[in-house]
Amino acid sequence: MRGKPLIFVTNDDGIHAPGLRILIRLMRKFGNVVVVAPDKPQSGTAHGITVKEPLRLEQLAKEKGYEEYSCNGTPADCVKLGFKIVLKGHPDLLVSGINHGSNASINIIYSGTMAGVIEGAMAGVPAIGFSLDNYSKDADFKPVGKFVSVIVQNALEKGLPHGTCLNVNIPGENGNAIKGIRICRQAGGSWQEDFDERTDPKGHKYYWLKGNFLNTDNKKDTDQWALENNWVSVVPVQFDFTDHHFITELKSWKLNEH
Amino acid sequence: MRGKPLIFVTNDDGIHAPGLRILIRLMRKFGNVVVVAPDKPQSGTAHGITVKEPLRLEQLAKEKGYEEYSCNGTPADCVKLGFKIVLKGHPDLLVSGINHGSNASINIIYSGTMAGVIEGAMAGVPAIGFSLDNYSKDADFKPVGKFVSVIVQNALEKGLPHGTCLNVNIPGENGNAIKGIRICRQAGGSWQEDFDERTDPKGHKYYWLKGNFLNTDNKKDTDQWALENNWVSVVPVQFDFTDHHFITELKSWKLNEH
Repeated sequence: MRGKPLIFVTNDDGIHAPGLRILIRLMRKFGNVVVVAPDKPQSGTAHGITVKEPLRLEQLAKEKGYEEYSCNGTPADCVKLGFKIVLKGHPDLLVSGINHGSNASINIIYSGTMAGVIEGAMAGVPAIGFSLDNYSKDADFKPVGKFVSVIVQNALEKGLPHGTCLNVNIPGENGNAIKGIRICRQAGGSWQEDFDERTDPKGHKYYWLKGNFLNTDNKKDTDQWALENNWVSVVPVQFDFTDHHFITELKSWKLNEH
Repeated sequence: MRGKPLIFVTNDDGIHAPGLRILIRLMRKFGNVVVVAPDKPQSGTAHGITVKEPLRLEQLAKEKGYEEYSCNGTPADCVKLGFKIVLKGHPDLLVSGINHGSNASINIIYSGTMAGVIEGAMAGVPAIGFSLDNYSKDADFKPVGKFVSVIVQNALEKGLPHGTCLNVNIPGENGNAIKGIRICRQAGGSWQEDFDERTDPKGHKYYWLKGNFLNTDNKKDTDQWALENNWVSVVPVQFDFTDHHFITELKSWKLNEH
């Protein structure tokens, strides 16, 4: 790598989120930093992209080794627009977060934080998402610095294979010290929906989406187990959704014999 | 299965899309049908969910063996709300589409159609997404009926493993007859972004997201190859994103020795 690495930073909680500010501060120790983050919170947007509205960028800071922009789109939009219009190329590393809330287990599928990461990986850029298992605006991010730094340091030194990125989840404050870092697989699990049904002043029903995460896979090699047992979880992530194991069986369906 | 199967239908092009109407007509031959689809087009919403606004349902039809609702949310919202509030349980099968446009290769990651399908699979329901490789509003859906029907018939008879769903893509009209159905894996590929930069009347720049799909994996066992060669592609899909092959290497990083 020539000179200082160029690190691209995004998130899904928006440009003003405390977790983003922490991540920017940590990344500026490693290299030159360009931030393109949503101008408002985008939690739950998953890998959405904006195709019916135009996108806009607003430059919020520009100094030696540091540029910051907000964008009116999703995290995936921020990465696409950031690479093409701001960088006019690719960074050495993309980081996303630090998300306010866990993206372990199947939460990755709803996650804008991880969508930004996967968008980077699809472009061939080493990419890492960081999430803190604490939804509070006042979450204590102090313990996370050393874990974020050691993972970033290693990724910059060793790189990641094309198409592989990392989903890092950090235990939220629960009074106990974090034990260290574990390499994990994504835990199985599901959300048990539980809508809050209400009636508006005109008598029409409406529903707030709530739900409880149900962990159906509490083995010790999973990210969910790690988090619950005060370990930082690191899951290597890829985006081939094919269920390769089921292909042979599916071929036995003989769908062309009709 | 007792009596007629209960089939849940959703999509991401919205309640008025011609592709949805075709799918409803086809499904009513198989069993009782409940439709919950977005009240407006939701293409590109991926697996987004609505957490900051309440959701609403509007009943548009109710007769023996058939109910239809529109919802102000995303396809994933439609499935969550449809199962919990409308069905108060699970259907025997979920189908989504027929999408106007391909969801082959990495397009699955941006797809609201397939988000609805994966949401069903996460709830343990056999689920299939159908997409026609033709973006036109006037696309000819006539050739698709027999392929949709044979796949649905087989899925109802044989079931799908918990956590596995199907991504079916059908060639768009190109003057040649469809050759049949192929079981495939998801092709590698990426979008090459190419923003259309414009200036508004106040002199501020804005950007329209465009792009060209770049197929980097044109092997004959891929969905993209099948589509381009006039085959219906069927990819079995799962939602464990873990890159299991990289776990051993990642463990060698020794992230705890700092």
